Amino acid sequence: MESLIVDKLLQNIKERPTLVHCITNYVTANDVANVILAIGASPIMAEDIHEVEEITEHCTSLVLNMGTLNKNKLEAMILAGKRANVLGHPVILDPVGAGASKFRREAVQRLLKEVKFSVIRGNVSEIKTVCEGTGTALGVDVSQVDATDEKNIDDLIHIGRKLSKETNAVIVVTGAVDLVVNKDKAVVIYNGTPEMARITGTGCMMNGILGSFAGANQEYVFEAAVTSVITMGVSGEYAQKKSKGTSSFRMNLIDEISNITSKKIERGKKIESKF
Amino acid sequence: MESLIVDKLLQNIKERPTLVHCITNYVTANDVANVILAIGASPIMAEDIHEVEEITEHCTSLVLNMGTLNKNKLEAMILAGKRANVLGHPVILDPVGAGASKFRREAVQRLLKEVKFSVIRGNVSEIKTVCEGTGTALGVDVSQVDATDEKNIDDLIHIGRKLSKETNAVIVVTGAVDLVVNKDKAVVIYNGTPEMARITGTGCMMNGILGSFAGANQEYVFEAAVTSVITMGVSGEYAQKKSKGTSSFRMNLIDEISNITSKKIERGKKIESKF
Amino acid sequence: MESLIVDKLLQNIKERPTLVHCITNYVTANDVANVILAIGASPIMAEDIHEVEEITEHCTSLVLNMGTLNKNKLEAMILAGKRANVLGHPVILDPVGAGASKFRREAVQRLLKEVKFSVIRGNVSEIKTVCEGTGTALGVDVSQVDATDEKNIDDLIHIGRKLSKETNAVIVVTGAVDLVVNKDKAVVIYNGTPEMARITGTGCMMNGILGSFAGANQEYVFEAAVTSVITMGVSGEYAQKKSKGTSSFRMNLIDEISNITSKKIERGKKIESKF
Repeated sequence: MESLIVDKLLQNIKERPTLVHCITNYVTANDVANVILAIGASPIMAEDIHEVEEITEHCTSLVLNMGTLNKNKLEAMILAGKRANVLGHPVILDPVGAGASKFRREAVQRLLKEVKFSVIRGNVSEIKTVCEGTGTALGVDVSQVDATDEKNIDDLIHIGRKLSKETNAVIVVTGAVDLVVNKDKAVVIYNGTPEMARITGTGCMMNGILGSFAGANQEYVFEAAVTSVITMGVSGEYAQKKSKGTSSFRMNLIDEISNITSKKIERGKKIESKF
Repeated sequence: MESLIVDKLLQNIKERPTLVHCITNYVTANDVANVILAIGASPIMAEDIHEVEEITEHCTSLVLNMGTLNKNKLEAMILAGKRANVLGHPVILDPVGAGASKFRREAVQRLLKEVKFSVIRGNVSEIKTVCEGTGTALGVDVSQVDATDEKNIDDLIHIGRKLSKETNAVIVVTGAVDLVVNKDKAVVIYNGTPEMARITGTGCMMNGILGSFAGANQEYVFEAAVTSVITMGVSGEYAQKKSKGTSSFRMNLIDEISNITSKKIERGKKIESKF
Repeated sequence: MESLIVDKLLQNIKERPTLVHCITNYVTANDVANVILAIGASPIMAEDIHEVEEITEHCTSLVLNMGTLNKNKLEAMILAGKRANVLGHPVILDPVGAGASKFRREAVQRLLKEVKFSVIRGNVSEIKTVCEGTGTALGVDVSQVDATDEKNIDDLIHIGRKLSKETNAVIVVTGAVDLVVNKDKAVVIYNGTPEMARITGTGCMMNGILGSFAGANQEYVFEAAVTSVITMGVSGEYAQKKSKGTSSFRMNLIDEISNITSKKIERGKKIESKF
């Protein structure tokens, strides 16, 4: 990616009115809203079936996060998702804990059947569950057998590419190493720090950033996804240096996101293109 | 306002048992609870229709916040609001995103019909929606056309006063400049910093402070509202000087609220009375 | 307790896969998740009746917290609790505001009838409500008449022991002084600082730590409870020295929990065994 593009992607969030509709879990909703504001966009959280279609009409993108899912929220996701599809808004799916219960496995299947996603982001287990209808995701964290690392990158690209072909979505696989894949492109991102796994919500925060970048740059969803992942990773690296524990790390992470610039992203990125 | 009064209003929160019942959104509920504790009162969040009337009986004030609204929560608000009215407790309404959907517009109308409010606090769009049954509020933030600024203060006083006459409530309009109006008084408050709009929940936090000041000072609701707005603004100004990004600003803001004194309020206030 | 045991209890959280299923309130869910991660375990929040049994099967312990309770959540608690009982997982109950409404009093009675608890943790009023079917708990904080202090410790041990005999649970009473009791043992813990009562969620955070210690050390639930209470108290004492207000205290508290060691616990503990 050219420097020019990162700068433009970031600027567009601030210059174009970027409003991200989130139907998300209550555990990390505050962090997600704060991260969306930090990057320069505006969040709106609304999940009642009586209003989600109308709310999403005012917005530029939609983030669906399956944490603390329930039946009503699932219906709201489908209504909002369909409306966003009609309007051409980017829709981001985070299949949190997709393999952890029959209820979530069926929810994922229904969501994928009824809504077209621009980006699907999860850890390896979640992506595998989405992809294969099977998996071992037991919550937010990746179990060791399924962790991303440098050795299995090619396998992961294969899985992500397969899912991208089926869904037309950009697939983002996050872990020790992160990956952004579509039908013909793949970028591996080596940014980030282990501290990011010691707080809740870094995945959810990344959804908020994805919603902001994709909402403001609907013509560049792949580049928006890559830039979102780098933004989180680079911010984590800066934050880690100043932190004295997991909670100051969380604060510093959001501070760094609020101070991110295209220069920091360019200077800090550790990425590799794979084909 | 006399110094003597600010000191008394603040002291009463600590000396009188001040318990604020909040039916509020899950995005900022943690911040609201922490701010109520920071100012010296106690929060209780409860929203099940089977208990809200009984819960509100134990309290000194009630805060109704329309963020992440749903049908059950709306019913709970009405039950609690009616009970608080019978008991003479101050009831604060925050019509979050009031104009963003038919569901919210109707919710506002029903709330105003069934519950008497002591204070209604919102941004210009929300207040206009409450007032006129129309508006363009698209979430928590004020769209530029509707922003408060020094030029349109007289128009805003007119709107606020009209609404105050209809509802008997003190009207608080927040934005770049804040305004507290009732039938015969109007105070413009110039405190605060732009950083307050870059975190989620400053409006919700102000509701918590309003609930605390009004709950402990039921005979001085107008003065309680003015003091609440100054408290937030002055705390924001102190916080801004120490902050390195949006998340440390949020922490410092709550820290400053927990350290507020009548002296800081008196020394820091930038207010103007208008008639 | 031997040094050796504290070290082992803490190590087991990290070495054994420790996954804590929480059905908890939305006000402090983020803090609870972050504290569970800080101590070295993993949280999963899930409360839909369609999945709670399956979710809890993947976990090592279950935390039920009655804040922001509603009917659906109560049913989910009972389903998950029964399943956890069958599997032999430790189940922790926090009867938040148990005496504040008929709905909560009945909920407590039903939970105690249908689920076997390993640990019940509350303030004096909540414990009294659980114990006697009466009480005056008005939310999260202890009203002054019911506060724990050094004078009424013997009365509290009597109450806790009675409840422990009835329920087979370890009883944890928290306040200015904390107490852990079962049928034949009682430990008074003098750690902690008054700042812990000026933020929301310290009780809920302690539940998360209890769930982590008990989940990883199912054969030592009493010792796990004592260590959890000391961990919170000692972390609070370290945090208090660095804090400039209630919100930095909250951050420092979680930071300290993320940096806790058996040495700090041993060196800092202020406990007394009573029989």
